[in-house]
Amino acid sequence: MGERHFISDNAAGIHPEVIAMLERASRGHAIAYGNDSLTQQALQLFKQHFGAQTETFFVLTGTAANVIALQSVLSSFEAVICADCAHLHRDECGAPEKFLGSKLLIAQTQQGKLSVATVAPLLRDTAMVHRVQPKVLSITQCTEWGTIYTPAEIKTLADFCHEQGLLLHMDGARLSNAAARLNLSLKEMTADVGVDVLSFGGTKNGLLAAEAIVFFDPQLAKKTGFYRKQSMQLASKMRFISAQFLALLINDLWWKNAQHANEMAALLERELKNIPQVELVVPVETNGIFARIPPSWVPCLQQHYAFAVWDSASTVVRWMTSFDTTAEEVQDFAQKIRNMNEDNAP
Amino acid sequence: MGERHFISDNAAGIHPEVIAMLERASRGHAIAYGNDSLTQQALQLFKQHFGAQTETFFVLTGTAANVIALQSVLSSFEAVICADCAHLHRDECGAPEKFLGSKLLIAQTQQGKLSVATVAPLLRDTAMVHRVQPKVLSITQCTEWGTIYTPAEIKTLADFCHEQGLLLHMDGARLSNAAARLNLSLKEMTADVGVDVLSFGGTKNGLLAAEAIVFFDPQLAKKTGFYRKQSMQLASKMRFISAQFLALLINDLWWKNAQHANEMAALLERELKNIPQVELVVPVETNGIFARIPPSWVPCLQQHYAFAVWDSASTVVRWMTSFDTTAEEVQDFAQKIRNMNEDNAP
Amino acid sequence: MGERHFISDNAAGIHPEVIAMLERASRGHAIAYGNDSLTQQALQLFKQHFGAQTETFFVLTGTAANVIALQSVLSSFEAVICADCAHLHRDECGAPEKFLGSKLLIAQTQQGKLSVATVAPLLRDTAMVHRVQPKVLSITQCTEWGTIYTPAEIKTLADFCHEQGLLLHMDGARLSNAAARLNLSLKEMTADVGVDVLSFGGTKNGLLAAEAIVFFDPQLAKKTGFYRKQSMQLASKMRFISAQFLALLINDLWWKNAQHANEMAALLERELKNIPQVELVVPVETNGIFARIPPSWVPCLQQHYAFAVWDSASTVVRWMTSFDTTAEEVQDFAQKIRNMNEDNAP
Amino acid sequence: MGERHFISDNAAGIHPEVIAMLERASRGHAIAYGNDSLTQQALQLFKQHFGAQTETFFVLTGTAANVIALQSVLSSFEAVICADCAHLHRDECGAPEKFLGSKLLIAQTQQGKLSVATVAPLLRDTAMVHRVQPKVLSITQCTEWGTIYTPAEIKTLADFCHEQGLLLHMDGARLSNAAARLNLSLKEMTADVGVDVLSFGGTKNGLLAAEAIVFFDPQLAKKTGFYRKQSMQLASKMRFISAQFLALLINDLWWKNAQHANEMAALLERELKNIPQVELVVPVETNGIFARIPPSWVPCLQQHYAFAVWDSASTVVRWMTSFDTTAEEVQDFAQKIRNMNEDNAP
Repeated sequence: MGERHFISDNAAGIHPEVIAMLERASRGHAIAYGNDSLTQQALQLFKQHFGAQTETFFVLTGTAANVIALQSVLSSFEAVICADCAHLHRDECGAPEKFLGSKLLIAQTQQGKLSVATVAPLLRDTAMVHRVQPKVLSITQCTEWGTIYTPAEIKTLADFCHEQGLLLHMDGARLSNAAARLNLSLKEMTADVGVDVLSFGGTKNGLLAAEAIVFFDPQLAKKTGFYRKQSMQLASKMRFISAQFLALLINDLWWKNAQHANEMAALLERELKNIPQVELVVPVETNGIFARIPPSWVPCLQQHYAFAVWDSASTVVRWMTSFDTTAEEVQDFAQKIRNMNEDNAP
Repeated sequence: MGERHFISDNAAGIHPEVIAMLERASRGHAIAYGNDSLTQQALQLFKQHFGAQTETFFVLTGTAANVIALQSVLSSFEAVICADCAHLHRDECGAPEKFLGSKLLIAQTQQGKLSVATVAPLLRDTAMVHRVQPKVLSITQCTEWGTIYTPAEIKTLADFCHEQGLLLHMDGARLSNAAARLNLSLKEMTADVGVDVLSFGGTKNGLLAAEAIVFFDPQLAKKTGFYRKQSMQLASKMRFISAQFLALLINDLWWKNAQHANEMAALLERELKNIPQVELVVPVETNGIFARIPPSWVPCLQQHYAFAVWDSASTVVRWMTSFDTTAEEVQDFAQKIRNMNEDNAP
Repeated sequence: MGERHFISDNAAGIHPEVIAMLERASRGHAIAYGNDSLTQQALQLFKQHFGAQTETFFVLTGTAANVIALQSVLSSFEAVICADCAHLHRDECGAPEKFLGSKLLIAQTQQGKLSVATVAPLLRDTAMVHRVQPKVLSITQCTEWGTIYTPAEIKTLADFCHEQGLLLHMDGARLSNAAARLNLSLKEMTADVGVDVLSFGGTKNGLLAAEAIVFFDPQLAKKTGFYRKQSMQLASKMRFISAQFLALLINDLWWKNAQHANEMAALLERELKNIPQVELVVPVETNGIFARIPPSWVPCLQQHYAFAVWDSASTVVRWMTSFDTTAEEVQDFAQKIRNMNEDNAP
Repeated sequence: MGERHFISDNAAGIHPEVIAMLERASRGHAIAYGNDSLTQQALQLFKQHFGAQTETFFVLTGTAANVIALQSVLSSFEAVICADCAHLHRDECGAPEKFLGSKLLIAQTQQGKLSVATVAPLLRDTAMVHRVQPKVLSITQCTEWGTIYTPAEIKTLADFCHEQGLLLHMDGARLSNAAARLNLSLKEMTADVGVDVLSFGGTKNGLLAAEAIVFFDPQLAKKTGFYRKQSMQLASKMRFISAQFLALLINDLWWKNAQHANEMAALLERELKNIPQVELVVPVETNGIFARIPPSWVPCLQQHYAFAVWDSASTVVRWMTSFDTTAEEVQDFAQKIRNMNEDNAP
């Protein structure tokens, strides 16, 4: 099995069906840069899953999906509102500022979710040339804390955005996990509730390296082909990016993978019940668990399974599951945690 | 076999050894973003091939390799000198200008090769604050016309650069083809003749999507890790980029693939001898053939095999071979061309 | 006298001594772009006022001074920490993000002043490639709320910065007002307490359009000449920017102008004592008064004198004085305010 | 009189009527950033001179006028075509690339003038995502060589641009000199012959520091206010920029100044007739003379009057006149040149 981790869903491998699809796609030649039949099939599948009006562009990293999605709809003096914990703000090394030339306006959140109440103050007193002009609200589904926006919550935010002249962007690096948890289709989670543009994640859900930008209004996508190339994200052997998405969307592999990861997190949560020194700091809704544990436990547990310290000041750790996490390793990890508890019992 | 092309080496598939390596790499978990053992092995292989002092960074596209290599050594008011036909200038949709904020200074060339004589005039009258300051000379090996800089020619350019306070960058998207043709090691083609930073291509030589930036002076690489991330090019499942390079550099697959592609181009060249209406416009040195043919032949031939019109004004076409081109399809294509000649004979 | 305002010190005119200097400077010809004797004199004066080691660059707007100062010391993946109310963040329409490509990290403040306690948390958990790297702390003197950092406070922040590998930038658009209030020299307010680079304001203190970037370590200034030009801020008839600074620094006009503006604000503050419905929300330390007043007063008072609503949600207004504010108009304005109070008395 | 030069029209002073206008404008207070009555008057004058449909924005440098004009109409993957000698390309230290993120496509010229024949090849083979997309043609009036595009020539270029989906930008840093020479109005030189956006120079024609961006289609100007601020070019005491233009446009000072400068160049040209070693390399059409002279003369003549070596390789020098050049100094300079000739006679 090799090493096993709870550090992130991007520590997982490539799903075997994806590798098989890459192998099949590799036979023969194909025109580069997306002018091939596999890419056409994959784009068609996106229309089936997200709606016939959508326009989709494949890229190679999640940061690129976010930045190019925003670049397509933003002038440099226009701003993006996002959460304090948003990947866009915290984990992209300033790629949005560098490439867009735009400011991010940051709203403080509890557990990663934005609301009209937290966003509206950022729109106040901006109608002047000295201020950047808010143009996009970006939400993350599921959030960096593993929490989920319900369709109704998304609809409320979308309606607010559209009233205010803003667009709604969703960073859906883990949208599949949210959709699986709510047992809803990808379209019900996005197009049907007013999302304007989506970054749809594949890499964290069993692919090698494949992300998609999905526009629900084709008018917004007119410049995206050029921006993708200028952003250094047009894969020459595009068919192999497309092949990954074919494997993911055919036979609902996206759902099965996400569902499994969610179940493994739920299993870990159940196993951790009744350990007093493990305090879950947010409800477990998808495939991540955020827990406050004694600082001394961290190095001991990391000897068995790698995981991330989410906030060094408060010793909140993150334990993530993935499509290839097994029940056995969840139970083994839980046992290791229980052992810590007992070893340190007063 | 599927469709077959002579349009580009990036129309080829993934080499079977690369797929096998991806499959092996996919077992178990690995820390993301390069902190894994496969990546460490791959980086070590680069030191073996290019020299112990090198620092290497993997990225996902050739455009990214070029831009991030340059970003690491350039301030925005500094300029890059390159050839009129350079990929950097013509085929990256302005990514260098967008990301670097820098100007490219263009030298006219015959057959893609720069020389001190063509570069030196661009350095004249620049010592003033109104002018961008030339800082890097970028050459392409092999060139976009398939021609090769000899080690001695590279050394001459490198010495000139260093005297003038410039660095020498090599866009080595097809460096392997040049090295195979000259039967020299990768180090002899770069580090040993004064190259400062290299974009080393993998995708065109049998990989899925993997390129490397190789710095021959580690001092130049101090900021590259941050720029790679900010440029949206840090693959989360890095081990699968590294695995591709492992397959390429172990057992000299890089050489075998490039050598085969070169041989197929040489075969096509031999087959085309004595067809009066096919005029080779540059010597065939690697895996591309540039020929002037009657305009009316283009659509007819493209019905059999896709290929590119390199210059629509003069009807120069480009026929490229790749690691998976077969002698049979070269001969068949040559026959199709001979048929055109006979059909159109006076 | 024309119209009179309390809206900002940039609503004031040009000091007569400055116009006279422009007129004198205009005789004869002078080499453009700063290679003239007036510019050399002005730069020499900056060395007298700020220290012999300083390197100074003149620009045309305060935003440009801030951005070019920062550009000189920052890579795009490095970040600037500043206050929530900083001009850099709120009032430059995203110029820092656009030109630097860098992120601003925002610290919440009371009354505009940063401290080690508010800055330190922004440095936590940043030692990874996904995060922007804090490199500069930018403080505003006097702050956007008119409050002053004492030399001791600046020294504490500078020491903290230097321990952490950060540089200290001061946005001194109104540094003169702070220095005048504390009766300290410009050098005692900057070089002597650890400031690394300063934006020194002239426009708000009686000039037409002239700002300076002052580096206290010449090593930091090596690229600034190029960045100033590339930032579109190299005035061709530079001698007329220099002439403004000559007028300002000779005979301590900078001090007289700032001192007068401060005194007029102090006078207004005294006049407003004992008006119960006017609540000063910060102490009046320089030339701005921030007061909470009944919302209904705003349009009435603005019929007499223009002024700014600083926070529309809480109806905090800003009343500013300038070098050419007269005691008569302060008293007249105070009377108008008292009248509002009486008209609206219960 | 102070020192006297033939180095550039930006070595001249400020016209006395401009200083007088600054002095008058300085009385009283005015809202900053352009919300003042003088600015409204100046903008109205632009409508009178250039057409009622125009939208104008004042900035502080010529580089800024060019860059912000282009930023208003360009996406970063779109390109600007300009001449090899264009200020935009050669003399702005890469500001266009830095701020626009766009590529300039360079056409070789004789004497600075572009034509359909030189521009059209740059549009070929660009309809693909790898290439930047030409969007603006930028011409300079008068050119950097002092030559003039006739209205008919501009019309031909404008028609070509509009057929091709391009916009026509004019860098009119010295448009006044061209208009004066042809005895045409500013409108006849621009709006009437299809120019879409103009950079209108004031600084070289007697102002302190004032340039204007004039849009002939208000639709193109919708974002310009924000871009001007974000480009660090919104003067806070805008009324003093406006005042300069008031002085320039009232009573046709623009025409008188330009006409005088042109006449002085014509006088110098006449004085230089019959000096065999002074070879004029372009016809003298406005206020610059480009002459090839013996290299040894350069340092001798520069002891008397500063001037620029335009091309160090061929010893072409540039002698420029300005609004404040006198006939006496022209004659004196011509005498100095004749003396060189005689001193060096064989």
